[in-house]
Amino acid sequence: MISKDSITAATFLILNFFLALPGYGNPQASKLHLMPMPYEIQPSEGQFRIGQDFTVSITGYRDSTLTHAVGRMLQRMKNKTGLPLQSAPVENKDTTATMQILCQRAGEKILSLNAEEDYRLEVTSQFIRMESTSPIGILRGLETFLQLIEIDHQSFFIPVINISDHPRFRWRGLHIDVSRHWIPMEVIRQNLDAMAAVKLNVLHWHLSDDQGFRVESLAFPKLHQVASEGNYYTQKQIKEIVAYARDRGIRVVPEFDMPGHTTAWLTAYPELASAQGPYAIERAWGVFDPCMDPTREKLYIFLDSFIGEMAKLFPDEYFHIGGDEVNGKQWNANPKIQAFKKRNHLLNNHALQAYFNRKLQKILIKHGKIMIGWDEILHPDLPKTIVVQSWRSKPSLADSLHQGYMGILSRGYYLDHMQPAAFHYMNDPEGKEPNALSEDERKLILGGEACMWAEFVTENTVESRIWPRAAAIAERLWSRKEVQDIPDMYRRLEPTSRELELLGVKPQSHYIRMLQIMVEDDNILPIKSITDLLKPVGLGIRQRIQKYYSFTPLNRLTDILPPESETARQFEALVDQIPAAAISQSTHVKKAKELLLTWQDNAKKTMPLLEQSFLLKENQPAFMSIAEACRLGLEAIQYLETHVKPPVEWKEQTTHFIEKLEKTPSETTITILPAIKKLMEAAQTSFID
Amino acid sequence: MISKDSITAATFLILNFFLALPGYGNPQASKLHLMPMPYEIQPSEGQFRIGQDFTVSITGYRDSTLTHAVGRMLQRMKNKTGLPLQSAPVENKDTTATMQILCQRAGEKILSLNAEEDYRLEVTSQFIRMESTSPIGILRGLETFLQLIEIDHQSFFIPVINISDHPRFRWRGLHIDVSRHWIPMEVIRQNLDAMAAVKLNVLHWHLSDDQGFRVESLAFPKLHQVASEGNYYTQKQIKEIVAYARDRGIRVVPEFDMPGHTTAWLTAYPELASAQGPYAIERAWGVFDPCMDPTREKLYIFLDSFIGEMAKLFPDEYFHIGGDEVNGKQWNANPKIQAFKKRNHLLNNHALQAYFNRKLQKILIKHGKIMIGWDEILHPDLPKTIVVQSWRSKPSLADSLHQGYMGILSRGYYLDHMQPAAFHYMNDPEGKEPNALSEDERKLILGGEACMWAEFVTENTVESRIWPRAAAIAERLWSRKEVQDIPDMYRRLEPTSRELELLGVKPQSHYIRMLQIMVEDDNILPIKSITDLLKPVGLGIRQRIQKYYSFTPLNRLTDILPPESETARQFEALVDQIPAAAISQSTHVKKAKELLLTWQDNAKKTMPLLEQSFLLKENQPAFMSIAEACRLGLEAIQYLETHVKPPVEWKEQTTHFIEKLEKTPSETTITILPAIKKLMEAAQTSFID
Repeated sequence: MISKDSITAATFLILNFFLALPGYGNPQASKLHLMPMPYEIQPSEGQFRIGQDFTVSITGYRDSTLTHAVGRMLQRMKNKTGLPLQSAPVENKDTTATMQILCQRAGEKILSLNAEEDYRLEVTSQFIRMESTSPIGILRGLETFLQLIEIDHQSFFIPVINISDHPRFRWRGLHIDVSRHWIPMEVIRQNLDAMAAVKLNVLHWHLSDDQGFRVESLAFPKLHQVASEGNYYTQKQIKEIVAYARDRGIRVVPEFDMPGHTTAWLTAYPELASAQGPYAIERAWGVFDPCMDPTREKLYIFLDSFIGEMAKLFPDEYFHIGGDEVNGKQWNANPKIQAFKKRNHLLNNHALQAYFNRKLQKILIKHGKIMIGWDEILHPDLPKTIVVQSWRSKPSLADSLHQGYMGILSRGYYLDHMQPAAFHYMNDPEGKEPNALSEDERKLILGGEACMWAEFVTENTVESRIWPRAAAIAERLWSRKEVQDIPDMYRRLEPTSRELELLGVKPQSHYIRMLQIMVEDDNILPIKSITDLLKPVGLGIRQRIQKYYSFTPLNRLTDILPPESETARQFEALVDQIPAAAISQSTHVKKAKELLLTWQDNAKKTMPLLEQSFLLKENQPAFMSIAEACRLGLEAIQYLETHVKPPVEWKEQTTHFIEKLEKTPSETTITILPAIKKLMEAAQTSFID
Repeated sequence: MISKDSITAATFLILNFFLALPGYGNPQASKLHLMPMPYEIQPSEGQFRIGQDFTVSITGYRDSTLTHAVGRMLQRMKNKTGLPLQSAPVENKDTTATMQILCQRAGEKILSLNAEEDYRLEVTSQFIRMESTSPIGILRGLETFLQLIEIDHQSFFIPVINISDHPRFRWRGLHIDVSRHWIPMEVIRQNLDAMAAVKLNVLHWHLSDDQGFRVESLAFPKLHQVASEGNYYTQKQIKEIVAYARDRGIRVVPEFDMPGHTTAWLTAYPELASAQGPYAIERAWGVFDPCMDPTREKLYIFLDSFIGEMAKLFPDEYFHIGGDEVNGKQWNANPKIQAFKKRNHLLNNHALQAYFNRKLQKILIKHGKIMIGWDEILHPDLPKTIVVQSWRSKPSLADSLHQGYMGILSRGYYLDHMQPAAFHYMNDPEGKEPNALSEDERKLILGGEACMWAEFVTENTVESRIWPRAAAIAERLWSRKEVQDIPDMYRRLEPTSRELELLGVKPQSHYIRMLQIMVEDDNILPIKSITDLLKPVGLGIRQRIQKYYSFTPLNRLTDILPPESETARQFEALVDQIPAAAISQSTHVKKAKELLLTWQDNAKKTMPLLEQSFLLKENQPAFMSIAEACRLGLEAIQYLETHVKPPVEWKEQTTHFIEKLEKTPSETTITILPAIKKLMEAAQTSFID
């Protein structure tokens, strides 16, 4: 046990340091932190001052979607400003209200791809006008409006501005897997609130997989009784979520993954399988053999009845049938299925799956639904009305488009890969090459979806894995293609996180709460200054390091760390600004040294604290490596400052250290290594010979 | 605009400093942070290790209250430990479950003062057994159990321990005024969760007052239609809250304040008043004239019908009729009422109110209810079955007891007075003098209630005003009278706050979120190091400084600051430890100097930031005074260290400064002044002549 006393004041340098980065606290810099960025903005001089006489009037078409949305907006304004505002819009057509909302006409009864999401917002110093074609456009505009609220010496205010906005893509989704780990109602609702805040408009709800079936079925009750371990949504709850989403302008697209990823179905109804049962709910992660038998007519009778039931429950036009990762082993091993393939001239398993999909698609049509599925459903036998969701290599979206199918992009939007927001942000559905797609092909792109697969998230951690990174994806899908300024995206991501926390979503606070539990203390600043330099690894690496099951606890540091290190991002930006010349006068160098010294010191001093917590002690090697990396960074700076060429052995040692670290399997990554490497390389090239 | 850059690293000394106080981080010191402290604890060596095989079995009597409570406990264990635990108790009488719960018999259908809240908890390294007479006892025990969870190098665990527990008082309430500011359902639910966590068992719901009537009445719909401005609970919502509370072992006692504090009633039904209407909902705070006319039989017909309706809605045996602060002006001005008094030999207004109360009490009896009211209902004409709630001077509780009435104490538990937790904690229902009450009189004390009046809280701030201080009151009412160790209470209050945050209640985080909004930045540490030295003042002082109305925004620093400064409390403890002799070697002196220097520096440097936020700029004088107080404190330390007698002028100047500060009206208080004064006094007495 060490005395925490010995941790020096320098600990807190870190927290303060970044205040010094350019733009910070600069009143001239734009404070607009809109996310996603609207199509057209014309900021001007002046402010609309928010007083407690602020009122809203709905002057045109009015329905409960609109009045609920205005009520929620007013409540959020109250929460933020502390002003005792009226909590509902005033009487219709009251032209004295400070904010006038004009909606031209009713929206669709059932939201579709054709939802009119455009809006215009005019803020003068005297009044606010918002106008849109349909209620959904107003909903989008209200979120923009809330993001415009600022504070100054005088009041809360909205800057004078003109905004004209509409989305680039019509399908802007968040896919949530609730099969591999159960996600309860409250967390789904929180995510819908967050989605609405950043203008995402499709909840793609992955409701069945090998590890569980999550919807109550009255037609086939064994599905939820036998295959959910009690973790399923009742039909009443499904209706609640659909209505909750509808109220926020969000469609709900259910996914029932077939014919593979169906162990849960087959646990309940083994007679649908391609091999003899019994089956049991899968506890591991991966691709498994159990698969529906597409050669039996009984299967289609079952699915007709099941889809008929679900079609009523989920009003959306689209119905996701999964279709991914059929490994074909059960088909290959079943002589009857082999005979069937031969008889029907189905050359391979992909053709057999297409046969299944064709039959399935007809059932969907019968129940008024359009089929959507993952990459693997792409097959020329299917009609051009279906939608293909690309998740593997980018060309697969291009493949669909070339063949005339509509597509949505998910490759590059997998949140479980723990990529930085910038990675997702720069992943454009149209790709990078300007002429890879024809104009017609481009039109076939409906949009994209952020994917939250649930191998490595629980109900407690999922919000901090989705948010705020999904906001960057939301911007990619809503805003102009040209909006690509990464530092500006990060500048706006911070207040976006803050807004989400106000909404009750926990992009940031979960990490802090859990770290407090791990050290059994409110005061986590010294240790957090070091854990802030770590980030979790993605699903692939984790699975290579150890075998995970559905019952493996996800309560370690790697499970609570933010998916990317803001500290490391800013530190690297600082190192990038260190000039080769005039190095000894550089304030950037001074700051880099201070940071490295503090980190080195804190890493050493907090290391013994890790011993006391079984959830932290595995991070001792990481803490030691951080201390060592800081030491090397400081040496590199010293060489730079003295213009002395580092000895060959130093280069060898340091390179060896970094390489070894990069090769060592670990479920956390040290995020300052790229910046340290840059310093070492600079030291080796910038000396005076 | 200043650059935040110039704020030095020393800023963060503060955050780190208190880690050095004795006991902190000491593994030998008791980690038990139970609150309220149980009646009997026998800790022992060893631990029960919490693994993911942790299961709970209910082996005796079982009902939905119990299974819900175990489900909630398991969910909270999951949230805290991240372990994938089962979310419900296992099959009845499973003796292999790791935690065995034995409840002897069913509890009351309607909770009463006779609820059996006792429980026994036995934790060995192998198993956990909890046993109680009734389900409510198990509920109390489960909260204790959750507070026992700790973490070490090996796992989450429960220390081996034997606990036998029962409450000192049967009535442990929290009074929430929802009339002066509206408190929505969700916030009431949050408070019920928090109450259950610290074993409070009565929600005293102040549902009507001059500023609003908050319950839907089918018999008299104008009450909620005309007198609530749309802010009322529907009968369905009332039932929801009653059931929610019942599930947590909490009684709900409604209060309809009469015959005074009835402006809202009279706005809806002016014919009940003692003077000609019309009336309008009151917007100011205070005691107002509108009062029911107790001389009219029509009033009792009305109340009979109203109470009949409410009696069905609120199943509790007790019904609170208010009865406070009748100023009598309308009675005095009404000749008919004067004549009535004469005719009926009612010598004064108090006698007239007693007449009203007697009639009211008979109506309550008719509907199966026992009357409870504030101090002023005490009158020898009323039967001994009523309960008097003491809120004015302490002797009034004694008065009730001397006259043989049952009483509950609220004086000294007024949370809106912004007293420190220790103040409430040391306020014992039996008083301080050991023999003031006879044994029989002591038995008439039912308990006490923390009171949250809502002149100065909103739905956003109320949680941070009630919690964590109400936990200290909960301990006073539950634990042995001898449990009075103030530093130990504070030691346990911190983890209690943390537990409440995990429950979704916001004793701490609201302050941080709002400060971020005020400075429009996530990084609030420099400014927070100074605002942490301020505290809000109580209702009395605020009202003297400016006139407040129900529509006055409560969004300033004084509205979000914690009711007491933990920093100042610890700083004063530090100053108290500075030895007169050997001062120059004292590490305490060194620390005190570091803190004062840092505060002085930060106060000066963050002052310009206040300019930029209209919600903060009024605090500039406070920041300047803090800087000056720190300077004086440093001078005092210098005199102490050098053993030089401070000059007479210094004494005069410093005394003048402090006195002036203490006299200047302000809605925040500088909390380090008492410690600074101690340093100055020490400097004037400890020199070597």
